[in-house]
Amino acid sequence: MAALARSVLVTGSNRGIGLELVRQLAASPRPPQHIFATCRDPKGPRGKVSVGTGNGMVLSQALQELAAQHSSIKLVQLDTVNLPSIQGAMRAVGYHLKDQGLNLLINNAGISSHATLRSLDSREMLNVFATNVVGPLQVVKEFLPLLEQAAKSTGKEGLSCSRAAVINISTKLGSIGLCLRVPEAPMYPYRASKAAQNMVTRCLAAELQDKGILCVAIHPGWVKTDMGTEEAPLTVEHSVRGILTVLASLSQDTSGAFLDWEGNSLPW
Amino acid sequence: MAALARSVLVTGSNRGIGLELVRQLAASPRPPQHIFATCRDPKGPRGKVSVGTGNGMVLSQALQELAAQHSSIKLVQLDTVNLPSIQGAMRAVGYHLKDQGLNLLINNAGISSHATLRSLDSREMLNVFATNVVGPLQVVKEFLPLLEQAAKSTGKEGLSCSRAAVINISTKLGSIGLCLRVPEAPMYPYRASKAAQNMVTRCLAAELQDKGILCVAIHPGWVKTDMGTEEAPLTVEHSVRGILTVLASLSQDTSGAFLDWEGNSLPW
Repeated sequence: MAALARSVLVTGSNRGIGLELVRQLAASPRPPQHIFATCRDPKGPRGKVSVGTGNGMVLSQALQELAAQHSSIKLVQLDTVNLPSIQGAMRAVGYHLKDQGLNLLINNAGISSHATLRSLDSREMLNVFATNVVGPLQVVKEFLPLLEQAAKSTGKEGLSCSRAAVINISTKLGSIGLCLRVPEAPMYPYRASKAAQNMVTRCLAAELQDKGILCVAIHPGWVKTDMGTEEAPLTVEHSVRGILTVLASLSQDTSGAFLDWEGNSLPW
Repeated sequence: MAALARSVLVTGSNRGIGLELVRQLAASPRPPQHIFATCRDPKGPRGKVSVGTGNGMVLSQALQELAAQHSSIKLVQLDTVNLPSIQGAMRAVGYHLKDQGLNLLINNAGISSHATLRSLDSREMLNVFATNVVGPLQVVKEFLPLLEQAAKSTGKEGLSCSRAAVINISTKLGSIGLCLRVPEAPMYPYRASKAAQNMVTRCLAAELQDKGILCVAIHPGWVKTDMGTEEAPLTVEHSVRGILTVLASLSQDTSGAFLDWEGNSLPW
């Protein structure tokens, strides 16, 4: 099987789905040449991976250990809500890639919010929008020159992750059509931010297809991570294996789609 | 024909669709007893209605003149992004309504944004989210006791605007499924905010139906207003006539729907 892509960048890669994406990409039979594993603080405190910290502290020992085992992994500081940080990361990544550009950008970093109508707080809700919608879009904007470079330099036609692609990690809870389990789990800020992010994915897909860049929103399933909690039915290994299989299958026909980790289409 | 509702509140009522809603409601054969016409600055500068000001200046002479002609209209200061302002408006409205509650809340206030991927600015995008998503949701949260009171006190069954309802003025540009005219008019912040607002409408519909409160998102059409510009094909009179007819027809079956000014269902 061909490599998914020559170069991949994953945001929020210090834990959960992001960390597992980096792990499985690096361990694959034909790994990408460059895996840029980004997080807010890649040199963060040497402690346990942040199970249950829940306070925004970023502990990245597991990622550091992984990078020590695979020369393909480069740790890059990238805080998606900080423009100079995004621009600094873009320059660092561009330096490594020379003139070949970045093939695959996975916007995985995000936060949850369990606010109900009663507990709603404007500032917290705006913070969720900043992290889940504005940040990922700003990352795409700043990395666009590298994605365009990849789209041109691969010599490929059509759309694919091996040419140039933006994958936004979304959630079924962001499906307005399904509007799952609302009274039990209203989660207004999280749901609204993910619906907004899905709109951004669709707009990007429409705007960037002529530049040879594919854009897709992926629901990873309800996964046992810090965010998903231990209640979740799916292991992170299983979810990520599915996601990577789906990514390898994406084409012109699926750009702008909202798919789950098994490749099933979800309603907006 | 029965009155649409005994009491109605319209945000952003100093111009455009909000002003015309107040005008047509007040002029109807059986007008609501109370029409709360709210805007950021109801005592604003006495000048022309703000055609082409486009800088957020709020000129409310037209609204003031309208209120002078109809005793049903009460002008109320309400800045939807300012919590103390929302709470003050809620107290003022509650005082007028005594124990009958508010039947119909129309979240009309909103802003547009033509930012493209290239011109995207994080702060501007967050500002659009604050005004188009967080503000309207905060208004619902604060006015909920008055809506619940109305749902109980009308002695009606089922859901309707004459019992208790939240109408969020949305837009077809907020339809992720349609994703209209993107490369020509990307408008990322506006589209994403309206998709998020649609999610909020659906969540509110699911959460509030057991309290007897209906929630619907309405696309008013592309209307000749400051926001819609003179290019728009639809007059504000025509759009609002349609909206009021649709509101009168809403029931249990349409709560949580996304309808246009002619009552047609739109995809999320």
